[in-house]
Formats: sequence, C-alpha cells, structure tokens
Amino acid sequence: MTPQMMGYDRAITVFSPDGRLFQVHYAQEAVRRGATVMGLKSKDGIALLVDKRISTKLLEAESIEKIFKIDDHIGAVASGLVADGRALVDRARVEAQINHITYDEPISIGILAKKISDHIQQLTQYGGMRPYGSALLIAGVDETGQRLFETDPSGALYEYKAVSIGANRNTVMEMLESQYRTDMSLEEAIVLGIKALYKSMEAKGEVPTIEIGVIDVETRKFRKLSESEVKDYISKADIKKPDAESAARPEREE
Amino acid sequence: MTPQMMGYDRAITVFSPDGRLFQVHYAQEAVRRGATVMGLKSKDGIALLVDKRISTKLLEAESIEKIFKIDDHIGAVASGLVADGRALVDRARVEAQINHITYDEPISIGILAKKISDHIQQLTQYGGMRPYGSALLIAGVDETGQRLFETDPSGALYEYKAVSIGANRNTVMEMLESQYRTDMSLEEAIVLGIKALYKSMEAKGEVPTIEIGVIDVETRKFRKLSESEVKDYISKADIKKPDAESAARPEREE
Amino acid sequence: MTPQMMGYDRAITVFSPDGRLFQVHYAQEAVRRGATVMGLKSKDGIALLVDKRISTKLLEAESIEKIFKIDDHIGAVASGLVADGRALVDRARVEAQINHITYDEPISIGILAKKISDHIQQLTQYGGMRPYGSALLIAGVDETGQRLFETDPSGALYEYKAVSIGANRNTVMEMLESQYRTDMSLEEAIVLGIKALYKSMEAKGEVPTIEIGVIDVETRKFRKLSESEVKDYISKADIKKPDAESAARPEREE
Amino acid sequence: MTPQMMGYDRAITVFSPDGRLFQVHYAQEAVRRGATVMGLKSKDGIALLVDKRISTKLLEAESIEKIFKIDDHIGAVASGLVADGRALVDRARVEAQINHITYDEPISIGILAKKISDHIQQLTQYGGMRPYGSALLIAGVDETGQRLFETDPSGALYEYKAVSIGANRNTVMEMLESQYRTDMSLEEAIVLGIKALYKSMEAKGEVPTIEIGVIDVETRKFRKLSESEVKDYISKADIKKPDAESAARPEREE
Amino acid sequence: MTPQMMGYDRAITVFSPDGRLFQVHYAQEAVRRGATVMGLKSKDGIALLVDKRISTKLLEAESIEKIFKIDDHIGAVASGLVADGRALVDRARVEAQINHITYDEPISIGILAKKISDHIQQLTQYGGMRPYGSALLIAGVDETGQRLFETDPSGALYEYKAVSIGANRNTVMEMLESQYRTDMSLEEAIVLGIKALYKSMEAKGEVPTIEIGVIDVETRKFRKLSESEVKDYISKADIKKPDAESAARPEREE
Amino acid sequence: MTPQMMGYDRAITVFSPDGRLFQVHYAQEAVRRGATVMGLKSKDGIALLVDKRISTKLLEAESIEKIFKIDDHIGAVASGLVADGRALVDRARVEAQINHITYDEPISIGILAKKISDHIQQLTQYGGMRPYGSALLIAGVDETGQRLFETDPSGALYEYKAVSIGANRNTVMEMLESQYRTDMSLEEAIVLGIKALYKSMEAKGEVPTIEIGVIDVETRKFRKLSESEVKDYISKADIKKPDAESAARPEREE
Amino acid sequence: MTPQMMGYDRAITVFSPDGRLFQVHYAQEAVRRGATVMGLKSKDGIALLVDKRISTKLLEAESIEKIFKIDDHIGAVASGLVADGRALVDRARVEAQINHITYDEPISIGILAKKISDHIQQLTQYGGMRPYGSALLIAGVDETGQRLFETDPSGALYEYKAVSIGANRNTVMEMLESQYRTDMSLEEAIVLGIKALYKSMEAKGEVPTIEIGVIDVETRKFRKLSESEVKDYISKADIKKPDAESAARPEREE
Repeated sequence: MTPQMMGYDRAITVFSPDGRLFQVHYAQEAVRRGATVMGLKSKDGIALLVDKRISTKLLEAESIEKIFKIDDHIGAVASGLVADGRALVDRARVEAQINHITYDEPISIGILAKKISDHIQQLTQYGGMRPYGSALLIAGVDETGQRLFETDPSGALYEYKAVSIGANRNTVMEMLESQYRTDMSLEEAIVLGIKALYKSMEAKGEVPTIEIGVIDVETRKFRKLSESEVKDYISKADIKKPDAESAARPEREE
Repeated sequence: MTPQMMGYDRAITVFSPDGRLFQVHYAQEAVRRGATVMGLKSKDGIALLVDKRISTKLLEAESIEKIFKIDDHIGAVASGLVADGRALVDRARVEAQINHITYDEPISIGILAKKISDHIQQLTQYGGMRPYGSALLIAGVDETGQRLFETDPSGALYEYKAVSIGANRNTVMEMLESQYRTDMSLEEAIVLGIKALYKSMEAKGEVPTIEIGVIDVETRKFRKLSESEVKDYISKADIKKPDAESAARPEREE
Repeated sequence: MTPQMMGYDRAITVFSPDGRLFQVHYAQEAVRRGATVMGLKSKDGIALLVDKRISTKLLEAESIEKIFKIDDHIGAVASGLVADGRALVDRARVEAQINHITYDEPISIGILAKKISDHIQQLTQYGGMRPYGSALLIAGVDETGQRLFETDPSGALYEYKAVSIGANRNTVMEMLESQYRTDMSLEEAIVLGIKALYKSMEAKGEVPTIEIGVIDVETRKFRKLSESEVKDYISKADIKKPDAESAARPEREE
Repeated sequence: MTPQMMGYDRAITVFSPDGRLFQVHYAQEAVRRGATVMGLKSKDGIALLVDKRISTKLLEAESIEKIFKIDDHIGAVASGLVADGRALVDRARVEAQINHITYDEPISIGILAKKISDHIQQLTQYGGMRPYGSALLIAGVDETGQRLFETDPSGALYEYKAVSIGANRNTVMEMLESQYRTDMSLEEAIVLGIKALYKSMEAKGEVPTIEIGVIDVETRKFRKLSESEVKDYISKADIKKPDAESAARPEREE
Repeated sequence: MTPQMMGYDRAITVFSPDGRLFQVHYAQEAVRRGATVMGLKSKDGIALLVDKRISTKLLEAESIEKIFKIDDHIGAVASGLVADGRALVDRARVEAQINHITYDEPISIGILAKKISDHIQQLTQYGGMRPYGSALLIAGVDETGQRLFETDPSGALYEYKAVSIGANRNTVMEMLESQYRTDMSLEEAIVLGIKALYKSMEAKGEVPTIEIGVIDVETRKFRKLSESEVKDYISKADIKKPDAESAARPEREE
Repeated sequence: MTPQMMGYDRAITVFSPDGRLFQVHYAQEAVRRGATVMGLKSKDGIALLVDKRISTKLLEAESIEKIFKIDDHIGAVASGLVADGRALVDRARVEAQINHITYDEPISIGILAKKISDHIQQLTQYGGMRPYGSALLIAGVDETGQRLFETDPSGALYEYKAVSIGANRNTVMEMLESQYRTDMSLEEAIVLGIKALYKSMEAKGEVPTIEIGVIDVETRKFRKLSESEVKDYISKADIKKPDAESAARPEREE
Repeated sequence: MTPQMMGYDRAITVFSPDGRLFQVHYAQEAVRRGATVMGLKSKDGIALLVDKRISTKLLEAESIEKIFKIDDHIGAVASGLVADGRALVDRARVEAQINHITYDEPISIGILAKKISDHIQQLTQYGGMRPYGSALLIAGVDETGQRLFETDPSGALYEYKAVSIGANRNTVMEMLESQYRTDMSLEEAIVLGIKALYKSMEAKGEVPTIEIGVIDVETRKFRKLSESEVKDYISKADIKKPDAESAARPEREE
C-alpha cells in the first residue's frame, strides 16, 4: 500500500479513493488464512470437508467441531476467525428455528443463506462494529434441490457446484476445476475432496485431520461421518500418508 | 490529490474546501468499477442488460442474479458493491409491497425511485454509516408510460432514454449516443445493447455473460429472458464470439 | 489556507480562531459550484429561472426538474448538491401541508422560509450531521404581497427584489444590479433573466437549457412554463444561439 | 499561538493549560466580526441601534431585520453569526411566552437574560454541539426599571448603562465612555449612537444603514422606528453623509 | 511540559503517566486566573469578600454580582469562569430548596458543600463534558456552627478558618496566615480582608471594587453589605486609595 | 511490528491487513503473562492446579483465590488480569444459577463454556469495550462425562485432556505432552501437575504456592483441597524444595 | 516508554502489545502519589492510620477526613485522588445500607469489598469513563472474623494481615514485613504504624498529621480515635518530633 492509501483502512465506514472498503478486504484475509474447507455437490448429495487443525494431541479431537448441523436438512462449515464462525452458525440455527415456529416448515436454504448474508452486509455499513472475519459454506437439500452457498465477509453470496475457502483455496479450486464433474457419485466427490485437501497441505509438510459431513439428496438429512467412515474414505483416496509424528502441526486458529 | 486535500475524505460528514463530499465520490468509484449494466427504452418496452461476471465455471451461473424483479411491473439491475446492491433491491421490494398494502395498487415507478434516492441521500448526510457503494437502474411501465431511472450513491436521481453504468459506462454511452434511436423495436434495442456490451469488454479480452430482463409496454410485466432467448439475441447481434476457454475471466466482485 | 489554519475545517462543531465555521463555508462553496439559478420580482409576479445542465441527450430532459412547486402559491429552485436540494424541497412541501392541516390556510411564505432556515441552522451547530450543501430560492405571493427568499447553508435568510445563486452568481448579479428595475413587467423580467443566463455561460462556451417557473401576482398561482413558452421568451431575448452540437456540455452535478 | 498551544482549541470540552476554552474565545471572535450594535439607556427609555449591512441594493432592505421584538416590553439586537442570533431570539421569544402562560404576567427582563445565558453556558460545557457564535443585547422596561443586558458566547451576562458589541465595539465604547451621560434624553442618546456608528465605520470608508428600536420608560412598549424617523435623527446628528454610491459596501454576514 | 507529556491533557478521561488529570489542572488554572475572593470566620460570623472587576464605568456596577445568597443562612462567592460559577450557584440554590421541601428544614452547610463537590467530581470522570472552570467558597451558619468550605474543580472539598482563591490567592493566603486570628471580631476580619485585597492588587497597579457578604452567627442570616457599609469598612482599613481614574482596569472575565 | 503495521492495533473494531485483530492478540498476551494454571483429566476425575503468586507474606494467603467453584459440579481457574477473571467467573456462576432456576437441573458444562465464550466473542466485535484480558479453564463432570474447556480472549473455545495456560504454558505443555496419559489416576495427574509447575518456575528461581481443586467423576462434586492435602501431594511429587526465603517472589498481578 | 509504546496509553479500552492497560497503571500511579495510609490487624482488632497532609494551618484540621465509617462494623481509608476516594466511600456506604434494608443484617465485609472492586473493574473495561484514581483499605469485623482488604484501580482485591498504600508504601511495607507480628496487641500495632509513618516521611523532612480509626474485635464497632488518644499513642511511640514550624508542609492533594 502506498502512503497515500494509508488511513482509508481504519474503519468500515470509510471508502478508499478507488471505492474499496479495506476493512472488508482485511476480514476476507482472515478467511484466506483460515482452515481449508470444501463443499461438493454430487448425484447423491452434498459433501462438506474440512481440515480440523489439531495443534496438540492433548486436545479432545472430537470437540474441534468445524462442521455444524444447522437444521435436519442443512449443514455448514466455517473458515476464518473461529469465534466469529461460531456466531454466524448460531445465527443460522436461530433463523432455521424461527422458520419452523413461524411457518411450521423447514427453512429454504436460499432464504437462510440470504438472511445470513444480509446481516453480514449490515456490519460492513454501520459504524461501531467490525465485519465478520469468517465465511461459511452452507449446504442443504430442500424442495428446490441441492444448494451449496458461500457467504463472504462483504455480505456477497455465491452458489457453487463445488467450492473451497480458506488457506488453500487456490490449490483446491484448481484441482476441482480440472477434476470435478457434476455426475460424480457422493463417494467419488468425497474421495476427490480428500485428495485435494491432502494435496493442498502437502507443500507445507502438513497432514490434514479431516472431518466430513453429508446431506443425502433422498432423505434430505444432514449427518457427520464417523471417524471410521472418514478413515474408509481416506483409504479409498489411496493417500500416501506421512508419519503423523514427523508432520508439521498447524498453528492454533484464533 | 494534493497533501492539502488529504483528510477531507475520511468522513461523509465533512466537506472539502471546494464543497465536495469525497466519500460520496469514492462510493461512486465503486460503481465505476462494478459490472457493466445497461437500460434501453424502445417502442415495445424496456430492456435491462448486464454482464454477470462468472469468475469460475464451478459457480452455479443461474444463481448469479444481477437483474431483479421488484414488482410485477418493475425490474432493476445493480452495479457496484454486490451486497449493497442487494440491500437496495430489498428496500425497493419492500417499498413496492407497502404501496400494495396501503393503497391497493402498484407503486408509481417515479415515486419508488425517489424513495430509494431519498434513503441514499440520508446516508450521505448522517454520520455513523457509509454511503451505498452501489447504483441501480430501475425500469418499469406504469400509467405514466415507460420509466428508466438511475439512482446514484449521492442520492441524485436521473431519468434516461438509454443509459449504462459500471466499469465500461463511457464506452457503452458513446455507442448508445451515436446508435440509439427512440423508435427502435425492443429487439433492435436488445441487439444494440448486446453489441455494446461485447464491444466494451473487447479491449480487455473479456467476454460478457449476458443476463437480460424486459418490461413489455403492453402487458406491463417484467420478466427475465431464458438462456436460450439470450442466445438467440446474441446470434442476431452477430458477435464474433471468441473461444470461451481462452477468454480472460473477470475478477469476482465484492 | 496556512498550515496554522488546518484542522479547524474538519467539523461543523469547531470554530476557527477568526470565528468562522469552515464546514459551513465549504458547503456554501458547493452552492457556488451548482447550477446557476435566478429569481426576479416584477409588476405582474415573480419569475424563477434555472440552467438545467443536460449532460447527455440520452437524459429525459423533462425529468431534470430544478424548479419545484411547493404549494399552489409557492415555487422554489435549488442550487448545489442535487440530492440535498431535493431534501430541502421535500421539507418545504411538508411544512406547507402541515400549515394547511393545522390552520386550514396556505402558509405564509416568510414563515415557510424561516422554518427551512431554522432547520438548516441546526445542522451547523449539532455534531453527527453535515450542513446542507444546497441553497434554495423560495418565491411566492401571499397576503403580504410578492416574496422572494434565499436560504443559505449557514441558516441565514435573505429577501431580494432579484437574486441569483450558483456557479455564475457574480456575473448575473452584476447584470441585474445594472439592468433590473422594480417596475418591469413579468415578460421583461424573464427576458432579462434569460439574457443574464446566456451571458454568464458564454465565457465557458456553454449554452444553458432553461427552465422557468412563474407565480402570478393576481392569481397567486405557481406554474412552470411549457417548453414552447420558454422558446418564445428566448426568441424575444434575441439570443445569438450557438450550434447546440458544438457547445460544451456541462458536467453532471452530484 | 505557539505550537505548544495547538490542539487545545479543537473542542469546547477541552481546557488549555492556562485554563481557557479556546472554542469559546473563537465564538466571541465571530461576534467581534459581526455587525456593530449598540444599546443606550436614557431618562426616557432605551435605544437599540444597529448597522444593517446591506451588501446589494437588490436586497429588500426592510427584510434585513437585526432588531427584534421579544415581547411588548422587550427588544433585542444580535451580532455575530446571523442564523445563531436568530436562534437565540427565537428562544427568548418562547421564554417570554412561557412566562405569560405560566404566570399570566410579562417576564422580568433580568430573568429572561439569565435564562438565555444559562442555555448559552451549557453549550460551552457539553460536547456534541458548538457554542453560539452570536451575542445579544436585550433591552426592556419592567417593574424594576430600565434594563440593558449583554449575553456573551461564554454564557457570561453583563448589565450596562450603554454598550456596544460587534465589529467596531472598541471605537464606539471609547466614544460612549467619553460622551454618554445617564441624564441624556432619549433623543440625545439616539443622536449620540448614530454619531458613534458613523464615526466607527468612517475609517473603512463604509456608511452604516441604521435600524433603531426604542423602549419607552412610561409606556413600557418596544417599537421600531420608521425609516423616516431614522432619517430625522440622522439629520439631527448632522452627519456629513458621503455619497452612497461611492461608499464601500460591507460584506454579507453568514 | 515535555513532548512526552503532550497528549495526555486533551480529555478528562485520560490519566497522565504520573497519575494526573491534566484537564482538571487546567480547570484549576481558570480559577487561579479568576477574581480574588476571600472568606473569613470570626467570633461574630463569617465574611465573604470579592473584587468585582469593573472593566468599564458603563457597566451597571451593582449588576456585577459575585456574592450570592444560596439560602437564608448560606452565602457563596465564585471565582473562575463566570458562567460556570453561576451554574454552580444555581445548583446550590436548587439543592437548598429541595431540602426545604423534602425535610421542611434548612440544609446543613456540610451536606450542601458535599453535594456540589460530588457533582463536580462526576464531571472529572465521565467523558462528553468538561470539568467546571470555577470554584466556590460556601459560607453559612447552622446547628453545627460556622462553616466555610472551598469546592475545587477536582471535586475535592476543604473546610477553612479563612481562605482565599483566585488570581491573588498566594499573596492573600500569606497575609492571612500571618495576621488572621480565630478570635477576631467580624469587623476586624472584614478590615483584614480589605487590606489583603488591596495589598494583593497593588503590585499590578489595580484597585479592587469590593463586594462583601456576611452571615451573622446569632441570627444565622446571610446579607450583602450596602455600598456605604463597604465604604465605611474601607475607611476603617485606612487604605491609601490611589486615584480611581489612573488605576489600571482589570480585563473582563469570561 | 513494522511502522506500516502501526495503528491497526488501537481498536478491537479494526482488522490489520493480514486479517488479525491486534487488540485480541494483546489481550491474549495478558494471559501469557498471567499465573500458570493447569487442568488434567484422569480416570477418577479432573484436577485444576494454579500457582497463587504470593508477593508478600503479609497477604492473607488463603484469600488469594484463583480456583473458583462455579456450581456443585463445576470448578474454574483463571489466568490473566485478575479482575477480568473474577468478572468471567461471576458471569459463569450466574449462568449456572439461571439454568437451575429455568430447567431445575445443573447446567451442562459444554453449554456453560459456550455461553461464556459467546460473551467473550461479542467483546471482540463491538466498539466501546475492550476484550477480556483473562482466560478460564472450566472443568466439570456431567451426564456427558468429564469436560475440561479453555476459553480464550478471542472467544474461541477448546476442549482438552490436559492443558495449561499462563506464564509458563509452553514449558508445562511440553511436559504434559510427553508424560500425560489418559489412564492416569487422579493422584498421578495431580503429582504430574505439581512437578510441571515446579519445573516451569525453576528457571526463574521462583517457587509456586500451589492451590488445587478437584471434581470427582463419581460424586460429580467440586472441592478445593486443604493446605495439608496439597502438602501431601507435594511430598509425593518429591520436589527438591528450595529455601522459601531465598526464592524470588513473583510480582503482584493486576 | 519507547516511542513504539506511545499511544497505547490514551484509553482504557486499548491493550498495549504486552497485554497491559496503561491507563490503569497511571491510575495506580495516582495512588502511589497519594497520602500514606496503613491497616494492621491485631489480637484485639484492626487499626487504620493515615497521614492527613495539612497544607496550611488555616484549614479546619478536623474537617480533613481521610478515615471514614462505612457501617457500624466497617471503616475505610482512601489514598489517591481525594474526590475519587470520596466517591468510592459513598458507594460503599450505600452498599452497606442496601444490605441492611434487603437482608436486615450488617453486610459481610468480604462481599462489600468485592462489590466495590467489581464496580472498579467495570470502569477499566467500558469506554467513556476513566478508572478510579484512588484505592481503599476496607477494614471490619464480622462473623468471619477480622477482615482487611485493599481495593486497587484495576479492580483487583487483596486481603492482608497488614498493609500500606500511598506515597510511602514501599518504606512502610518493608518495616511491616520485618516488625509486624500477628499476635500483637492493638496498642502495639498502632505504635508500630505510627513509627512506620514517621519513619517513611522522615526522608523528605515531613511530619505526618496522624488520624487513626479502630474496629474492636469484641464489640465489632468502628470508631475514630480522639486527638488526645492519638497524641497518647504518638508519645508511646517515642517519636523524636521535629519542630512543626520548621517541618516541610506537604502539597495539597487534588
């Protein structure tokens, strides 16, 4: 940044001369340094994958929850500031419950994603608060079919066939763009996701601790895979797993 | 900007010595860097065109909605910060519904455009919030005939025969000023718009992904054209389409 | 401004050592860069004239409204920031309607002008908002006769026989001071105003697009002149009109 | 001001090391640059005089009101920022009316002056607003006799036999100190005031446009003198009046 | 002040590294530059003395009130910013009246002084307002005997036998420390006070205009001495009075 | 920190260009300089240990409470700013009581830890307050078994088998990672904790004053060990205790 | 402080990079410059001692109250900013009375001290106010025995056997650490305190004016010692008292 640009980046209520909101860009940077997460649609349903980043073996690994059930038919995964992501997930859960109470039916996934994004946008326009330093992938199946959304710290909202956010987004997106097919089976999609996660962390000598959630297109139910199921998929992905002890351990996120 | 001018551009509540509100100018810059959008009146109705900017083929293209139905007889298209534009569109929809409930009739397009602009103006005068970094073209047909408005981040409001905003406004406006005629048919107007969009992006080696909405002067109904209808119009425009793979991909907007 | 003076001009709540409110001066500068507007009393009534500044022929010229009806017997014209002027006009209209509802009679023009000026003053004293970057000429006929007021961003209020504000105020005022007579007919006043407008823009090679409103002293009714009426007056003014195509086009106001 | 002193003068809520409130001093400076006004007690009543500062002959001179009736028995004259003075006058009028309604009798002039000064003081102590850049002379006759008060932007309140504020205070005060006598007739007091006003503006080659208000000690009624009465007094003052056309015209106040 | 200390003195809510509140010190400085005031207990009651600082003979001298009756049994004198002192006196009067209404008895002087000091303290701790730039001497007689308090801009409260504040505090205090005796008669105390006032202003070539208030220990009544009574005491003090005309005139306080 | 980074660390509502909230990092630094605390799960229950930091023998040692009972089944230990930790503990106690009153059952430890963390997160997003400079270990036994949580100033929440925070976290964590086993008895866990505490302070020549709390997995009751019980465990740990007099005394925490 | 550290010390809501709240440290500095105060437990009760700092003999010495009765069984002494200490004492008295009214029993001293400290902590976390620049020793006897607490501007709370705060804390604490014994009689404790006070002020050539309060362990009553009782204890302490006249007089506290 040139000295002339300095100072435009201290408040969300200030535009820079080129029409940017630097504080929103910086919040997006928090996501770009977050955990690598992924979502993939398939013929049979949607898979969400995430690298859990276990910084010490003394952590209760199962307590590091990065994939969250929002409602029976909706799951979400967060990247960026951990506590911000949790706050967004809580908000999504409340919105889903309000819909149940108000209309006596499950919330449309598109409506839920838009409500969350509208809230995120407001924090980029009003003073006194900072934007969220976290992004969500929201996945679900409803009467309109499979939906996979990315919310962004700017309040923008995107729908994808397959997408990754977080530290290794670029590497993963390249792999998805070349190998992802919309007619994959759920198993094929999960295996592709696992390969991409391992690939993306290989360069830093890190090994992911993978957590997976799926929403079945038939039952419209979200569930998290058990550790053994995840292991089965990893073996199907035929990863040449490095020795866990020698692998670099990622830093703890905030 | 000279050093003497620095500092006047940090808050919307501060005038510069030459009587300008820099923060409003910077918000307008966000629009000048936004998607290229267009509106054209014709004998048969109004056409809205936009380049959707698909940054990756993994995006669900149809989910990238830049043309919005506001009411049966009104459509709008936004340029600038994506989430800000969505917030303005939401506000317009609510105003339209309030009119239905209060007066039991569709809202006048001029009144709707003024209400939105009044709200935008207030955000240029009160501290604690920033101006909207987004502009709208609002098009519709009501008892006063065809109306095509541009709202500006300053709160100014303009009515046009044909207009473009966004990244390539200047190129498109020049083409419209020389080739647009008020007695064009809707088809002729759409074809002119498509040609202008392709032309304006040619220089950067980009190819637009065009979305089109129309309001028929007879039925007073807004509708978005289907992908095949858009393709038909593009073929009528006789564009020499470059190879999609080799074309540069625009950056994702915020 | 000397370095020692810097910093006193960042907030309306701060006086400079010489007892000035710089932010108010800067808001006045916005008026000094606005459209050239004029008001002239005559034997038969008051005329308001304005240069509409059409920046492109694609604009719907009649939609560029700079002269506003406030009530049956009152008209107004704004110069400075477009959206600010609209906000002041709206406020004036509401005040006029409140008077109808409360007292069942048309508002006195002097009272209306003072109410608007009081509101403008408050924005020069309280923090959190900026002053209005717009001034109004308010003209009307009531039981006290013809009234022609100028409101100023400082909240000051002046009553004139004939007055001009905006970009070419000085040139126009000189011409009025030398040629204006209180016993002119309305036609003579309008012709003088047109000449002054053309004269003042001549130097920049610009041609005004003139809009005119009149309040008849007998009927006490405000009305805007039709385009053909305006053309008639222009021909009476015997202007040597330059070729419209070759004339410089004014920049769009904010 | 030395560099060490800089910065203490940016807010009314900040004392300088020498215990001063610079913002209040700067507001007083606005008065020192305002219109020259005067008040003089006499055997027969009090006179208020002011130079109206007509900057152009196109102004409706009678509309430039600087002497205001507050209640039947009270008049006031303001100097400094025009709109601030008007706001203080409005406040005084409301206080006078509240007294009528609450106690069914005219307000004591001392109480009125104190209420206005208390309000002015508060604006020197609370953040978020600026002090008033205007001072009032409040003159009246009540059961305690003739009263002539000066309110100051600091909230201080002074009672005088004769006093002047505004641009030429020092010159006028010197003249009053040497020539004013408490046993003057009202006519003698007015003539002295006129002389002092002409004298004080002589140096700048300016000619005052004088407005006069009087409160009769018998009738306890405030009234403004007619233009012809003012002319009579000016002729009694035997001023060698320079040619109005050649005289310098004062700048318009804010 | 060293550069390192700069900046700690801009807000009452900021401590300096050495644990000081500079804004409170600066408010105390306003008192150190205020009128010289004095209070002295005696066998017969308490005397309050003040130099009224008449800056021009056109002032109504008796209107310059610096000694105030708070309640029948309490008087007060202020030094520092004039309008701030008046605000504190008003507050004291209201507190005294509240006590009458609530308990049907005169307020204890100690309680009154503490209530005022508590209020002053709060303005040194909360942001958004500045401390009072004024100090009071509060004197009275109640069932606990004679009381003489000094309130300070810090909110501290002191009780004295004899005390002075304002511009010449140090000179006066030295004189009191050497000559004051608790067994003085009221007359002796007043004469001592007058001598001290004259002495302290001698150096600057100024002559005080003395105002005196007393509270009798028997009747417990506060009253202000008449001008002739004051003159009698001055003659008893046997002052070698300089010619009033040649004496320097003090500047007007704010 | 490079000069370019300066300024991003003055408010919790400002991101740095690399997406960090410096104020939250600085609050974490307050924890890193706090008392060394530890929590260890075992077969028989959870142990919390803390070094109490007695800075002078005149302190009532038992009053230095760093381990707090939250509810019958929950204990907590704080590190960082002492008063902030107490505020968090109070909040936890209130949440536990609200659960008793609302649901008539003891609060789930996971829910309690999340509620506290949600509150902490909000203080990292809203302006006007600072983040908590304190972290808690929350330990308890409920129907889901043994739970041991760490709350962080960022609002992040972690669950551990064994964990340490505060001044010597790194040393202690290394020792725990190499020697801790999930099948330890409570006694073995406590002895390991004591050894780690002594080890970690050895380098600075300091001797810990150890306080211990335990929650039994059977009874689900929290209790603090008596001084004699603590001594027994210390002797079991077979520490070569240096002479208390010669040992360095830690500084008092804030 | 290095330049890099500058700026972190301007607001209580800003942490420094090393996790400190400088404004709280500066408030503690105000205490370190305050009056020297002391508290000592003994077999028979608790003694509070303070140096009253009489800056002039014109002060009513008995009015300089630094030891306050909070409730029948509780006394307190303040050091630091005088008015802040009074505000804390008032708060403590109100809390004690609320307890009487709510529970019909005297407040526990531990609860009282915690309530005051919680309030102090909040002023270190919320913006808009500054921390208290004062600390209290709170001493009392209740059903839990003798209690002696120190509140700190950070909100931390400590319980002591014997403690000193204020200007000479270090000297006094050293003396107490070497000579204080828990089995002292009240008389021995008071004599030790007096010796320590004299000793600590000796270096600056100052002589303390001692005020003493005691709470008897049997009667649980707080009372202040009379001047003659204090003199008796001073003579028992066998102080070589310097000549009062020649002794340096301490500066007045704020």
